[in-house]
Amino acid sequence: MISINQKKFVNSLKQKKFRTERNLFVVEGIKLVEELLQSDYEISAIYATSIWIERNSELECFEVSEKELQSISSLKTANEVLAVVKQKEFQLIDVSSQLNIALDKLQDPGNLGTIIRTADWFGVQNIICSEDSVDVYNPKVLQATMGSFFRVNIVYLSLSEFFSNNKGLTVYGALLDGENVYQKELKSKDSVLLMGNESKGISEELKPFIKEKISIPNYGKAESLNVATATAILCSEFVRR
Amino acid sequence: MISINQKKFVNSLKQKKFRTERNLFVVEGIKLVEELLQSDYEISAIYATSIWIERNSELECFEVSEKELQSISSLKTANEVLAVVKQKEFQLIDVSSQLNIALDKLQDPGNLGTIIRTADWFGVQNIICSEDSVDVYNPKVLQATMGSFFRVNIVYLSLSEFFSNNKGLTVYGALLDGENVYQKELKSKDSVLLMGNESKGISEELKPFIKEKISIPNYGKAESLNVATATAILCSEFVRR
Repeated sequence: MISINQKKFVNSLKQKKFRTERNLFVVEGIKLVEELLQSDYEISAIYATSIWIERNSELECFEVSEKELQSISSLKTANEVLAVVKQKEFQLIDVSSQLNIALDKLQDPGNLGTIIRTADWFGVQNIICSEDSVDVYNPKVLQATMGSFFRVNIVYLSLSEFFSNNKGLTVYGALLDGENVYQKELKSKDSVLLMGNESKGISEELKPFIKEKISIPNYGKAESLNVATATAILCSEFVRR
Repeated sequence: MISINQKKFVNSLKQKKFRTERNLFVVEGIKLVEELLQSDYEISAIYATSIWIERNSELECFEVSEKELQSISSLKTANEVLAVVKQKEFQLIDVSSQLNIALDKLQDPGNLGTIIRTADWFGVQNIICSEDSVDVYNPKVLQATMGSFFRVNIVYLSLSEFFSNNKGLTVYGALLDGENVYQKELKSKDSVLLMGNESKGISEELKPFIKEKISIPNYGKAESLNVATATAILCSEFVRR
């Protein structure tokens, strides 16, 4: 059983305002909760159906019906379990020893989630988002990461301050009029790949920080690539060998 | 004004069953309709607000209020115009003179849309989908293509029949245990890049057709890449120079 107050509380966490106020977020579904349990995140409550509880009998859970679970879920079809989790202060790791990703005003949750998954694939440990980027605790972001969320450090900072404070880093800016990335020497240490907003690209105020303008050559007629797609191709170029 | 029957009719086209039955589909929003008008698709009806009609006074339209437009829209926020369009029989072009993409049981509309956009960027003209793949006329697919839909040929076929009938083509299969794609010679003519379903990968029955198993090396801890992301990285490997 879930009380009306619990239901209201969990549903309130669909909104960034309440997630921030309460310092909590929601992790859903068998796969993501499995990864959550292996992480060092502190779990505040678990709501699960009897099937899930049977398989995880060592954990303290609120047992709910499928219908009750659906009433607090962000998924089209709720998937056995939902956990309320404490937010964690992310810390950037070894910025200078590797390639980092910076995202300027990224808006689409699916794009951020896909970029986190891609970063985890290519061993990129740090993603620096401008403060006005989409919230990483948005349920759609978390789902799209497919669990990679638990293995990548995502911080929200003023990008111009970050670049000013890390002058040793080479900033590669993805621009439609950049140089052919296939013909560039790319530094996969001491570097940042800067990607812009879905429709407006990289902000004018950040352009002075770019040391190398890079571009994926266009062999067809599309006006642009999706930003998560472009980030993946560029990451691949940095690490390929 | 829009009549109740018109409203019902347009809304029915949100379902594949009725799109197929009526041989129609819907194109929405300023940008996509602009690309539609430049294409050779036959338009059956345009519903637009007065603002759009003012800018396109040469066209015959049903004038609707924003609220009426929203009532037939698939977008969160309807965007001035919606067109009902006749479906077209796609034809594959010059399969043997280029790289083609084959998609096995792709399910997510956003993924198909993104792959079409990526194909258009890299000059890939043909996408062959297995018959049980997501419908290209799904509104979410069309939105994600950002207009590239009008420039790529997408056909639905039995992939095993297609491969049997095109024995001259080299089939590259994207598999987690394939060879390092960065170290392979890739043929960007007379070839097909075969991508599998989001969770199950390439079907067992198609594996015998694969001539070259390829894989994007994993430098981190993610279990897999998103299929649209992987398609983009692989296309980039085929064309990069």
